[in-house]
Amino acid sequence: MNAGAIFVWEMLGTAVLVLLGTAVVANNMLRKTLGNGAGFLFVTVGWAFAVFAGASIADPSGGHINPAVTFGLAVAGELAWADVPIYWAGQLVGGVIGATLTWLTYKLQFDDHPEPENTLGIFSTIPTIPNKLWNTVTEIIGTFILLAWILLTPAATVNAEGEPVFGNAALGYAGVAFVVLVIGTSLGGPTGYAINPARDLGPRIAYALLPIRGKGNPQWGYSWVPIAGPLIGAGLAGLLYLAVSGLS
Amino acid sequence: MNAGAIFVWEMLGTAVLVLLGTAVVANNMLRKTLGNGAGFLFVTVGWAFAVFAGASIADPSGGHINPAVTFGLAVAGELAWADVPIYWAGQLVGGVIGATLTWLTYKLQFDDHPEPENTLGIFSTIPTIPNKLWNTVTEIIGTFILLAWILLTPAATVNAEGEPVFGNAALGYAGVAFVVLVIGTSLGGPTGYAINPARDLGPRIAYALLPIRGKGNPQWGYSWVPIAGPLIGAGLAGLLYLAVSGLS
Amino acid sequence: MNAGAIFVWEMLGTAVLVLLGTAVVANNMLRKTLGNGAGFLFVTVGWAFAVFAGASIADPSGGHINPAVTFGLAVAGELAWADVPIYWAGQLVGGVIGATLTWLTYKLQFDDHPEPENTLGIFSTIPTIPNKLWNTVTEIIGTFILLAWILLTPAATVNAEGEPVFGNAALGYAGVAFVVLVIGTSLGGPTGYAINPARDLGPRIAYALLPIRGKGNPQWGYSWVPIAGPLIGAGLAGLLYLAVSGLS
Amino acid sequence: MNAGAIFVWEMLGTAVLVLLGTAVVANNMLRKTLGNGAGFLFVTVGWAFAVFAGASIADPSGGHINPAVTFGLAVAGELAWADVPIYWAGQLVGGVIGATLTWLTYKLQFDDHPEPENTLGIFSTIPTIPNKLWNTVTEIIGTFILLAWILLTPAATVNAEGEPVFGNAALGYAGVAFVVLVIGTSLGGPTGYAINPARDLGPRIAYALLPIRGKGNPQWGYSWVPIAGPLIGAGLAGLLYLAVSGLS
Repeated sequence: MNAGAIFVWEMLGTAVLVLLGTAVVANNMLRKTLGNGAGFLFVTVGWAFAVFAGASIADPSGGHINPAVTFGLAVAGELAWADVPIYWAGQLVGGVIGATLTWLTYKLQFDDHPEPENTLGIFSTIPTIPNKLWNTVTEIIGTFILLAWILLTPAATVNAEGEPVFGNAALGYAGVAFVVLVIGTSLGGPTGYAINPARDLGPRIAYALLPIRGKGNPQWGYSWVPIAGPLIGAGLAGLLYLAVSGLS
Repeated sequence: MNAGAIFVWEMLGTAVLVLLGTAVVANNMLRKTLGNGAGFLFVTVGWAFAVFAGASIADPSGGHINPAVTFGLAVAGELAWADVPIYWAGQLVGGVIGATLTWLTYKLQFDDHPEPENTLGIFSTIPTIPNKLWNTVTEIIGTFILLAWILLTPAATVNAEGEPVFGNAALGYAGVAFVVLVIGTSLGGPTGYAINPARDLGPRIAYALLPIRGKGNPQWGYSWVPIAGPLIGAGLAGLLYLAVSGLS
Repeated sequence: MNAGAIFVWEMLGTAVLVLLGTAVVANNMLRKTLGNGAGFLFVTVGWAFAVFAGASIADPSGGHINPAVTFGLAVAGELAWADVPIYWAGQLVGGVIGATLTWLTYKLQFDDHPEPENTLGIFSTIPTIPNKLWNTVTEIIGTFILLAWILLTPAATVNAEGEPVFGNAALGYAGVAFVVLVIGTSLGGPTGYAINPARDLGPRIAYALLPIRGKGNPQWGYSWVPIAGPLIGAGLAGLLYLAVSGLS
Repeated sequence: MNAGAIFVWEMLGTAVLVLLGTAVVANNMLRKTLGNGAGFLFVTVGWAFAVFAGASIADPSGGHINPAVTFGLAVAGELAWADVPIYWAGQLVGGVIGATLTWLTYKLQFDDHPEPENTLGIFSTIPTIPNKLWNTVTEIIGTFILLAWILLTPAATVNAEGEPVFGNAALGYAGVAFVVLVIGTSLGGPTGYAINPARDLGPRIAYALLPIRGKGNPQWGYSWVPIAGPLIGAGLAGLLYLAVSGLS
């Protein structure tokens, strides 16, 4: 697949992921919505099937929609390193677009919200107890599980002919959605489970740029944690894959 | 497939969709029900699997059960324009039938409800902050995502022999249900995610006609928004499909 | 398949269904449980996957586990009438066994419950507003949807070779679970969606016979509604199947 | 498969299961988390898809990740008794590792928790009403259902070529997840559904060893119940399998 096509599919898929994911938080948090206060199960269900929708749309390029997935596949030897920057560029641009669409979807609710300075949490992750070391550990563990599942589960890496590929058409992504659901319910409590640098940085850039009424600080000081943690976790999973994939 | 068969299958499927979808709102809203106050996650789960049930029943005609799906497929060149009016007619009639069955299912609860003038929300969508421009934007974005997924996801548009078709038998519709679930959780907060003109207009007609005890106003002034928004969103997704489907 | 095998598989599957289904209500209702007050979404999820578990275990006999399913298949011409009594006998015995196992599972909680006279609702359905005519209508509509889906959805009635069968191995039953989930969320509000005579009568018999501490009245006067309603609804769906199955 | 590979895959899969499962309880229970107080449906969803994630990762060794599953398969004649100790060793070590990772993921929240002496419930099961006889009955019934489903459902025990195997790649484990979900919602109320000795003993050992701030008693007096109950239930299901598998 040529670089332009990779860029377009990853941009589209990540935009869908980030739109649906940040919007479920908006629905839960903003005052005049039908989902106000629906709770964390609601949020994790939304993010899980946001991954399903985005990844299946990006299926032609492998459905990464996450720089950590791309990185983990490269470390595992399942993706050419030369393709990594193209994937990353599409994912980051998609993240900015998706977050912008969330703002447009909830424009009236953003304008009505009584505490607009607290809306960063709709776009990017905020730890419940700030501590950059331990927050990074949490993000490492969450992303490690995601990549370990993707790399070690046969159906996700082998097609019907037994050829090594990442991702199957459509319903194959239900498995990824289930894993993201449980990462959210189980490992998402401390930091909001970025587990995806584009999902966090893209919306943070959008938050900084968009004329959101009364918006607060984009908290750039924390922004490297949901980038570094996921990349480290994905890299470790790629090394695990290399260590165990010969076992049988 | 002949026009009569298309009409019957779309009518049946849409009736099932609208019965199950409006009924979950009735269960959540009416006083003497087991689901009273169960919340928005409950409602979005109900609508998602209402789509699963209705679409799989309408599988012989492609499982559209939504005029915006039919329109988007036609724009994308995947359906003959001459068939569109037949689909739409079956869908609208099905919507009226489904809403009528919801009233019969909850007849005792409708008769008992202390604020019967507020029951329109069981049948048709009502925005949390009325603003026809922005409400239309929200409906456009929601329906765009639905059609983008349907058109761009291989499993939904190609059968086992690689022929372009919309919809697979039974479990293939689980994917559509997952996407409708996340559209609900994520984009449904401001307007109640009609994303389907027949789902909104059919029940609104039923609400206007049925002898529901103490019923309120059908709010015809808003009724064009959940028709125009979904059709515009579906048309844009059809254009996106034409633009990107050659990329590889 | 011989009559003895049908009896055993249907008994096993229905016992699993009724155990898991009545137990989720016990978990929600009894005081000293981890699921106390978890709500109606919790209950409908439990019943849906109770059907998944029970039906896939009873797969050798077609996974009916419901006299109304058996009846609807016979009306539709997909099952020999001579087999119907065998299916029904296995299902009813399974219902009694499953309810008994629920009592054993929650024995300590039953003994602790402060209002033991209200525990019938764990075992059998009770309408929120008693009215035998309209309660029957609600049960007819719910069961009609279940059977319409089973009969009209290709994957549920045709196997990989295109032969007409009811039920596929294992994951095929996920579709039935999704339909039962939405019937519960959407049509279960007024009467608790028996939609299965064995699921209601079996546990009612168990409730009448078991030495449950301080138990209340089994309410035999209502007991025919969750038998007649489901059978009528299933019969109507069988007639619909005969009417439309030639359409194409 | 050689013993070393069995050990590694079962250790990895069980570590993922126990990490994700104990962490969803941490998220629900600890004070400064996004999932605090999210409820029992949230917890059961987490455990269900924790099984999905762990079992699909352990697919090369059959995806047992539970000593009771290994035991039931051996009783049913589907696994060599000589392999049982290898499976059990990997599972137990995995359980300790998984619980340790949960502590690291929620380190800041454990340090902040106001009632640290009550944190055993994050790691191991605690009955709501202590009574070793009836608690064991509950664990027997829950594990019996799990193993009956695994052994009697064709898709879980036969591969595409019709050969008897336990477990299919990836999405086949969704069925197990659905069954664990309903066991949790329905049978998990009294004892917290260990239904897996490694899931309970591994974290209990970790709780005893780890320097968790202000931790309470590991309650060793109860620890044999979630070992004996699951093994008895699994053994009974294995006998059922031998009794009925010839029926047709």
